[in-house]
Amino acid sequence: MEYRWEELTLAFSRVSMFPFFDIAHYLVSVMTLRQQLGAITVAWQNPLVSWFSAMMHCFGGGILSAFLLGEAPVKFLENNTNVLLASSIWYIVFYCPYDIVSKCYRFPPVKLLAAVMKEVTRTWKIVGGITHASSNYTDAWMVLVAVGWARGAGGNVIISLEQFLRGAWKPETSKLLEISYPVKISLVGAVLFTLQHAEKLPMEKHNLMFCYTFFIVVMKITMMLTESESSPLTPFEIMLGRMIFGFWQSDTSSVPCNTLKPFFNGTSARSKPCTTSIENKKKHNKKTE
Amino acid sequence: MEYRWEELTLAFSRVSMFPFFDIAHYLVSVMTLRQQLGAITVAWQNPLVSWFSAMMHCFGGGILSAFLLGEAPVKFLENNTNVLLASSIWYIVFYCPYDIVSKCYRFPPVKLLAAVMKEVTRTWKIVGGITHASSNYTDAWMVLVAVGWARGAGGNVIISLEQFLRGAWKPETSKLLEISYPVKISLVGAVLFTLQHAEKLPMEKHNLMFCYTFFIVVMKITMMLTESESSPLTPFEIMLGRMIFGFWQSDTSSVPCNTLKPFFNGTSARSKPCTTSIENKKKHNKKTE
Amino acid sequence: MEYRWEELTLAFSRVSMFPFFDIAHYLVSVMTLRQQLGAITVAWQNPLVSWFSAMMHCFGGGILSAFLLGEAPVKFLENNTNVLLASSIWYIVFYCPYDIVSKCYRFPPVKLLAAVMKEVTRTWKIVGGITHASSNYTDAWMVLVAVGWARGAGGNVIISLEQFLRGAWKPETSKLLEISYPVKISLVGAVLFTLQHAEKLPMEKHNLMFCYTFFIVVMKITMMLTESESSPLTPFEIMLGRMIFGFWQSDTSSVPCNTLKPFFNGTSARSKPCTTSIENKKKHNKKTE
Repeated sequence: MEYRWEELTLAFSRVSMFPFFDIAHYLVSVMTLRQQLGAITVAWQNPLVSWFSAMMHCFGGGILSAFLLGEAPVKFLENNTNVLLASSIWYIVFYCPYDIVSKCYRFPPVKLLAAVMKEVTRTWKIVGGITHASSNYTDAWMVLVAVGWARGAGGNVIISLEQFLRGAWKPETSKLLEISYPVKISLVGAVLFTLQHAEKLPMEKHNLMFCYTFFIVVMKITMMLTESESSPLTPFEIMLGRMIFGFWQSDTSSVPCNTLKPFFNGTSARSKPCTTSIENKKKHNKKTE
Repeated sequence: MEYRWEELTLAFSRVSMFPFFDIAHYLVSVMTLRQQLGAITVAWQNPLVSWFSAMMHCFGGGILSAFLLGEAPVKFLENNTNVLLASSIWYIVFYCPYDIVSKCYRFPPVKLLAAVMKEVTRTWKIVGGITHASSNYTDAWMVLVAVGWARGAGGNVIISLEQFLRGAWKPETSKLLEISYPVKISLVGAVLFTLQHAEKLPMEKHNLMFCYTFFIVVMKITMMLTESESSPLTPFEIMLGRMIFGFWQSDTSSVPCNTLKPFFNGTSARSKPCTTSIENKKKHNKKTE
Repeated sequence: MEYRWEELTLAFSRVSMFPFFDIAHYLVSVMTLRQQLGAITVAWQNPLVSWFSAMMHCFGGGILSAFLLGEAPVKFLENNTNVLLASSIWYIVFYCPYDIVSKCYRFPPVKLLAAVMKEVTRTWKIVGGITHASSNYTDAWMVLVAVGWARGAGGNVIISLEQFLRGAWKPETSKLLEISYPVKISLVGAVLFTLQHAEKLPMEKHNLMFCYTFFIVVMKITMMLTESESSPLTPFEIMLGRMIFGFWQSDTSSVPCNTLKPFFNGTSARSKPCTTSIENKKKHNKKTE
């Protein structure tokens, strides 16, 4: 039984991302772009800008990690095959007659399959980023985490920046550094694989790859089927937040809402009043000094 | 006859940009900065910021291409002579008594000559960028195009970014990624010289340099004499746009205005209603699903 | 006597920044972050973003100089000890029970000592930046100035950028490229140490380090005790501005307020009317042409 498990995870860790998983990744990325407000108008009026945006969505992780390592951000263009593949997908998504591709994509099983395959590429990207970074920075485990995280979730960061430069971003929304679910889960992955790389984790690499992929795929399917926006990590965040930051605060201020607040979540509206009261307390402190 | 042509183009391709063409480039760049709203106020209140902006205008192409290749963006400062030349021109343009320089520049023949000489430097920059990039990325023709294009037109991109950081840019104008005429013509040049570099073009390098320079100079003179804002590339763009993106759309929607729209142009007001109808159609599609 | 002076400055130049001076630098940087509007709310709702901001404040100079030299901006993460030290200080400043640390910091002698120690690290950073850059760019003295300046004052530039990305920055304030006192004094230091490095200054390195540090420390103490916002460099700026840019303008326009204007200062409200009159003159010139 155990032999079979080993065999399965090893075979899984040797699956090639090219071409099917890469296609799924590009398809999901370009469809994300297409669903943005005004993206279709841009595609018709200014195809070059649209193509540029699509490349940012598809190769954002690679660009960000190259930037962080001081390498050439245009390096992704070296891989002609993948760029042409992504360009073809951009082309058929935006300019296909009768919108066949985007209509197919709206069919739930297709969407689910593409999303799951995209999640699988995330594992491969994080592992690739850590392996790449470890050739130059052997002992700098924080660099490994940063590069693995950038490779896995960099697309989301780059997209925000790109929207912002294109003028689609409004300053009042201020979501650029807000931490979304893919960014968080990539960070968790980057930490896990860095620990494994430093041999601090009693687990083989292919086993960890299988478990992590299984975990994020299950998460993704759950989120898509329940159509919930909230991250399934919230309970762990609350626990972790209470462990690291919460004890003393609840001792000193004993604000009841504070103990229920999802600590790592930047968007929770519930926590507003509580924080305001903390802020007021600080102001009060300053005044009475 | 042919021998003389060869001789002429070879001699032309060996013309040194330093110092006269470089001076013309710096003069045109700094005058562009000076004509911006508020630039003179900044120059008097805060000379360092003004000098920094002037350097961005003069060396923007080099900075952008260095960034794209993962090289040091401060590398342009290594060339002391050119930086001092550009600084001198910045100094006399902004602080010359009685505004002699900017008054001379307003005299049309001077302006035309400077603009033509600046266009000549564009060819040299594109060729230089491609040669520089090809030493590291031999087969990656997309990298060559990107670097050649960045070297030729990067100034315009950097300028937008710099204005934006300085606060002179308003989010609602959202022109940062809009593609202006110099950016387009540099892209065409970068593609042509990359093809020549990969020996896909039945033409010697010096011949291509002569023809491309001749073409952009004639374009520039035409644009300056007719004072037209519209790009002379528009008919080609329409043709190309119709070839690549137009057929199916005109089949499916048969919107008459669609077939006349300049596809690569982001600013055309005429195309608004047409695009809106497409957008509406999409919304309608979503609704009726 | 002279022997003792030599000994003193040499001993001073060999003082290690780690750990006490580094701690002071991190403490001042993180307290600057904490005093920003909304920083405490961010720290409670989104610790990761707050930690990221704190690292930008602490290691901004290193990140900017790495970027300018085309090196890996994540390089600062290699130094695990310093990152952990800075993280610990971020943790105790934001999450310490009863706000002990920030209350201690408000006690004036502590604040003064920390600020003075932070100024000392500035000298070390500028010298470190110039030494680092000179290994690759021996004769490019402008590169040395740029890197030394970035290392010494880069934190301030990075902070503006980071605030801006976080959405805390409003476009109308447009202070991003405004030159604050630390940025100016770092530039002066970078120029002095580059001159010393090029052996253009009749002074030993350790003597210059002592004198420059003494100068900036005295400046800082004066500014903190008098609580003045205006830079003590203003008289020199006016003199320098008059020498370089003033002569002709006062000849041609003879605007009396012009001669008193602090030329390098971007914030002076007094100079507004005067500049407007210059601007009007320009407009008038254009009109009458």
